[in-house]
Amino acid sequence: MALIGILGGMGPLATVDFMDKVVRLTTASRDQEHLPLLVANLPHIDDRSSAILDHGADPLPALLDGIDLLNRNGVGLIAIPCNSAHHWYAQMSAHSGAPVLHIAQTCVAAVPREARRVAVLATGGALVSGFYQQALADLDIEPMVPNAEMQPLVAACIREVKAGDLDAAGAHLQAVLGLLAEQGVSTALMACTEIPLAAARIAEPAVKLIDSTLELARATVKYACERGWNRAQ
Amino acid sequence: MALIGILGGMGPLATVDFMDKVVRLTTASRDQEHLPLLVANLPHIDDRSSAILDHGADPLPALLDGIDLLNRNGVGLIAIPCNSAHHWYAQMSAHSGAPVLHIAQTCVAAVPREARRVAVLATGGALVSGFYQQALADLDIEPMVPNAEMQPLVAACIREVKAGDLDAAGAHLQAVLGLLAEQGVSTALMACTEIPLAAARIAEPAVKLIDSTLELARATVKYACERGWNRAQ
Repeated sequence: MALIGILGGMGPLATVDFMDKVVRLTTASRDQEHLPLLVANLPHIDDRSSAILDHGADPLPALLDGIDLLNRNGVGLIAIPCNSAHHWYAQMSAHSGAPVLHIAQTCVAAVPREARRVAVLATGGALVSGFYQQALADLDIEPMVPNAEMQPLVAACIREVKAGDLDAAGAHLQAVLGLLAEQGVSTALMACTEIPLAAARIAEPAVKLIDSTLELARATVKYACERGWNRAQ
Repeated sequence: MALIGILGGMGPLATVDFMDKVVRLTTASRDQEHLPLLVANLPHIDDRSSAILDHGADPLPALLDGIDLLNRNGVGLIAIPCNSAHHWYAQMSAHSGAPVLHIAQTCVAAVPREARRVAVLATGGALVSGFYQQALADLDIEPMVPNAEMQPLVAACIREVKAGDLDAAGAHLQAVLGLLAEQGVSTALMACTEIPLAAARIAEPAVKLIDSTLELARATVKYACERGWNRAQ
């Protein structure tokens, strides 16, 4: 049995959502059949998107401190429920003793085979970094990046979730999905872990949504249960 | 700035609920204004209620291991979102370098002044331990312990939340609240952290409910924000 390490706090509600999904995806009839987690919820890590876009303070030292904290405590796997942080995936993965799941790899693997063109809803930083577009292109899927009209609405949605205003975030996301549907886009990646919290406010999304938080949780639970970490020793 | 230590996993959904309440109670407009948390979600700790009631395996060694893990990583405060574990509060508190909040103290402090008789909804183990009855008596409030008809419904509700069946748990809790109202009880403590997850399924509870998870979260956020742990250094 090993602990699952979660490097979180980016943002905090997204980390709670990720843990909620891990718990609900685990087949268990009592506490002792659940998975052990060590969660470093470190919201003070400098903003990832600003660092990529605007030469904001570099979050990498604090990200590596978090990776160190988890490894020092014997985790057997690390999941990071923040998409933008995966701009530094190579550095974090190389620095970590425990394997680190890649959220974009788990998310694009859930795109239906018939989808040929898929929108990427993410921070401006993650879009400039480009790892989602690359992951889709690797599967011969055309990535669709929101235009200058749409991206400010995505950014507002993300900012509002971080500030706890889920109603406003849901309204902004709904506007984005309407614009995507008008442009004939039928599938979108929620490639920022704040967005699924906004999507929960929308009864019938106009576009099929793929949830990066949920897909990372699925991969985490699968990895850990295959190794029996849900069984006490 | 210090980390808030959370000794959780008892059960896992209750820990998620506690974290959710901590995040939502924190005034923040962006990630960097939130509180840093280190969460040891350790669901394999032996069942607390069984240990108290039926001479089940002793959870104290694993509880102390969890306290050690949090202290080793420099937490400045520990919160334990499991009421029954507080049967061992004295041992955990004495063992810990960081102060440990007492969930029952934070919960009874939220009882309205006019309440003279308050029901305690808890595991059988916590009721036999008696620390909630004592905490109420210390405030000159008469504790009302569910009778032999009612307690199995409370136990079913708790068990169902741990197994993820919130609909069944909500129905059992609603039955309990109906019986309490018939007996003229107007206030009840949700003195087990699974119960608030069931209560969220009830639109209009027949009895005023005080949520031990929420009160522990309030005390945690107050303690940490007073010390500036929500500000990056």
